[in-house]
Amino acid sequence: MRIDIITVLPELLKSPFEASILKRAIEANLVEVHFHNLRDYTSDKHKSVDDTQFGGGAGMVMMVEPIDKCISALKEKRQYDEVIYMTPDGETLKQGIANQLSLKENIIILCGHYKGVDQRVRDHFITREISIGDYVLSGGELGAAVLCDAIIRLIPGVLGNETSALTDSFQDNLLAPPIYTKPREYKGWQVPELLFSGNFPKIEKWREEQAYQRTKERRPDLLED
Amino acid sequence: MRIDIITVLPELLKSPFEASILKRAIEANLVEVHFHNLRDYTSDKHKSVDDTQFGGGAGMVMMVEPIDKCISALKEKRQYDEVIYMTPDGETLKQGIANQLSLKENIIILCGHYKGVDQRVRDHFITREISIGDYVLSGGELGAAVLCDAIIRLIPGVLGNETSALTDSFQDNLLAPPIYTKPREYKGWQVPELLFSGNFPKIEKWREEQAYQRTKERRPDLLED
Repeated sequence: MRIDIITVLPELLKSPFEASILKRAIEANLVEVHFHNLRDYTSDKHKSVDDTQFGGGAGMVMMVEPIDKCISALKEKRQYDEVIYMTPDGETLKQGIANQLSLKENIIILCGHYKGVDQRVRDHFITREISIGDYVLSGGELGAAVLCDAIIRLIPGVLGNETSALTDSFQDNLLAPPIYTKPREYKGWQVPELLFSGNFPKIEKWREEQAYQRTKERRPDLLED
Repeated sequence: MRIDIITVLPELLKSPFEASILKRAIEANLVEVHFHNLRDYTSDKHKSVDDTQFGGGAGMVMMVEPIDKCISALKEKRQYDEVIYMTPDGETLKQGIANQLSLKENIIILCGHYKGVDQRVRDHFITREISIGDYVLSGGELGAAVLCDAIIRLIPGVLGNETSALTDSFQDNLLAPPIYTKPREYKGWQVPELLFSGNFPKIEKWREEQAYQRTKERRPDLLED
């Protein structure tokens, strides 16, 4: 899989891709991630990527031309399955979308910044608009990092233990059950006895019940789906 | 405002706080952000922060002791308004929560990693559990960066233009309207004529209609709230 990220702040994206699971996935050639600085696709001497809004209003708008040039240059070299724009008014990211995107070959992710991009970019170049949640961030870069992390950890071979991702929250529309590790007692706080019983079918049943209970209490909406 | 982030991967968090708006806010002393490496609070020579699950199952669990030590050390120095745990089964982050948290003085953010933390941490140390969305990430670090960005940009003085955050998506339960910048025509694609009319009340009305229309099409759930 190959991911091309278009951004005005490639330096912001650096460290998340140089640590932990993303780093390992890249080093193992399970995924290629390339950053493209939008300023490299500008034509004026100030390397402007944004300008004021037509019609007035606060905040700068990213111009269509540098984005067009960058996307076109990438498309000349290979076919892309999706050109994704990270924006708070896009489709809300859910585990199912991450599962789906993890099967693609080449994707472009455009990070919005300032007030967002000129509407013509969205009308003519973008195939999918994704939001990581109902809140506003100072740019699309963190959203892109979140999307990449959600996708990349699902690529076979990326997580050490293949079964690990399958027991995560959301994979079966249930939240994960409580988990415990050593020590058995800490400041008088005990681990539930059952977990030491060795009765694995019973433990499994308890975990399912706990997962269901927690979902019912915290996120009844997940059970309705 | 002061934010203390507890993590096993402080290096992952570096670049988002060294660029753009977060960097500016820190440099202007509008916010202090401190990273605490959980391994500095371990007592064994391997600096272990995690161990296997009681009752069996894939994935490692973060132990209660190092987390207790780190949180206790912080609490000895000052009072905290919230001790937040980033977890996919927490309360879903919305703009309203970010608004609320931006008014706090001191908060701790604990980043989960591996399979998550020992349930006793959640039962005894955490005051609030937050999820940035219904998807699983390889750790809480990106979630913490997202939460910090959402909060910090709301602190007065952080955004250049004070009015800018108020016209964002979600601040009034509506998505933002389309925006345009130069050039007026690009590859035959025109900017709506109205935006050059100079008739600002009419432009304002058009924007409101567009925002409402977009919200109705994409996120009817926001209109029901």
